Amino acid sequence: MTNPLSSGQGRTPVTVIGLGPMGLALARALLTHGHPLTIWNRTAEKGDALVAEGARRAATVAEAVSASPVTIMCLKDYETTHELLVPAAEALRGRVLVNLNSGTPAQARAAAEWAAAHGIAYLDGAIMVPPPLVGQPGSVLLYSGHQAVFERLQPTLACLGDPRWLGADPGLAVLYNAALLDLMYATMNGFLHATALVTSAGVPATEFADLAVNWFMPTVVMDASLVEQASDLDKGDYPGDVGTMEMNLNALEHITRTSVEQGVHSDQPRLMQEIAGQAIAEGYGGNNYLAVFEILRRPATT
Amino acid sequence: MTNPLSSGQGRTPVTVIGLGPMGLALARALLTHGHPLTIWNRTAEKGDALVAEGARRAATVAEAVSASPVTIMCLKDYETTHELLVPAAEALRGRVLVNLNSGTPAQARAAAEWAAAHGIAYLDGAIMVPPPLVGQPGSVLLYSGHQAVFERLQPTLACLGDPRWLGADPGLAVLYNAALLDLMYATMNGFLHATALVTSAGVPATEFADLAVNWFMPTVVMDASLVEQASDLDKGDYPGDVGTMEMNLNALEHITRTSVEQGVHSDQPRLMQEIAGQAIAEGYGGNNYLAVFEILRRPATT
Repeated sequence: MTNPLSSGQGRTPVTVIGLGPMGLALARALLTHGHPLTIWNRTAEKGDALVAEGARRAATVAEAVSASPVTIMCLKDYETTHELLVPAAEALRGRVLVNLNSGTPAQARAAAEWAAAHGIAYLDGAIMVPPPLVGQPGSVLLYSGHQAVFERLQPTLACLGDPRWLGADPGLAVLYNAALLDLMYATMNGFLHATALVTSAGVPATEFADLAVNWFMPTVVMDASLVEQASDLDKGDYPGDVGTMEMNLNALEHITRTSVEQGVHSDQPRLMQEIAGQAIAEGYGGNNYLAVFEILRRPATT
Repeated sequence: MTNPLSSGQGRTPVTVIGLGPMGLALARALLTHGHPLTIWNRTAEKGDALVAEGARRAATVAEAVSASPVTIMCLKDYETTHELLVPAAEALRGRVLVNLNSGTPAQARAAAEWAAAHGIAYLDGAIMVPPPLVGQPGSVLLYSGHQAVFERLQPTLACLGDPRWLGADPGLAVLYNAALLDLMYATMNGFLHATALVTSAGVPATEFADLAVNWFMPTVVMDASLVEQASDLDKGDYPGDVGTMEMNLNALEHITRTSVEQGVHSDQPRLMQEIAGQAIAEGYGGNNYLAVFEILRRPATT
């Protein structure tokens, strides 16, 4: 049996729905790799440059998905995706749908169920790089859903960046996406708040950024030992022989006091201080700082 | 005129006050490099191993500081430091005091004023690595205060790790310390919360940590472009041509909803969402995410 996605000598035809900055980057990467491309966007002119480069513009979503065995959707959210897909459901039957918008795991699972009910092979995905890095070496795209669908599609997906399959649960890609962005925003907010602290004493942000980004973060915070320590999170084991939660709370109190003293925003350090305080109240005072994981893995009690 | 800190062929004698895990690491690094060492600790036995290796134990703080031209103090906080120093003030006159405990910039400035009033040359410092890395290549210690004192002391301080002088304001070292630890805790809390999100769906923490720490953080978040962008913070210029605060708020809302949906703590993403929302309310909706710096550099309004 031949693979319909790689039959003949040519590349698999692909349809891209949604031509925001990310959809445009996906479409261009596919065109660059020689995939016959059909496009649709609510505001049709967004595709003008792609049409000039050889893409075919469809008049409706149903016409667009009918043109290719694979459709990639990249819209604002699941509500928008669902609204556009309902009239195209029959046209998609027997084809593959790859959905790359953001949302929650429950929304991704609901989309997968809807697709299954209409005979559509469904993959959910998340793009972990900004549009200019789509298709560049070192970029990663995450997928979840049927493994067989992922494997058939892998040569096509590879045009967009290193494709990684996370598991059969279609909610995993958006969950990883939320988690990685969560880490990104927390780090950015930490960096911006730290910069606010030093600039309050007249230090240039560039001077602080050099030490913080080029030395401190890779050497002291995000180093290989953190990956090793992650197994302690799986075990729920937080030995306090090098440093304890009590010592960390003392440091967090200094940071909050310094924020107040320097006249900068203090809600972020105060929240971390409260979370560490709660960990101590629950008996983790002699454990290391990773024990705040036990607080963060449950809903807030207040 | 000869430098009294490097007279003769031997190394400068040094006194270390405070033998917690960090004080012990400092004392051992000095001994290893051949500095005659005098020690004092409230609980004297903490110094037993150092005495066996050649350190001299003093009976009082005044006796300890009298034994060396340079005293390094490493105690819990400025209150403890001050309490021990008052009876030793006359013994310290004409000598150098290096204070490495944590605290706020105002406390460091007050300590420097007290020292100046007693004829003591004062440097304030902060150790940016855990005790096992003291004296190891790649470790950084920060100092602030009189530049001439720092420069005279530099050969001795180099035993403890790469010494960096931040400026004449004695509050700068503890301010940098608070800022870097702030960044560390924010990143750790982001990592632990992100890990809580994925483990809520059965993903092992080790699997997530590999992607997050080894790929995502260095490639997408803490890369060289952030150091370049830091000049935008100094200029207060946040161009929104690649991504806007509105788009980031949309992502933060997804993260908070996902946290609630997965049954994990949601205060951290909700606070970031509120800060981004405030930036939009103040007119930064079309700027890039760095504009939250304008919110974080002022006291919270609520």
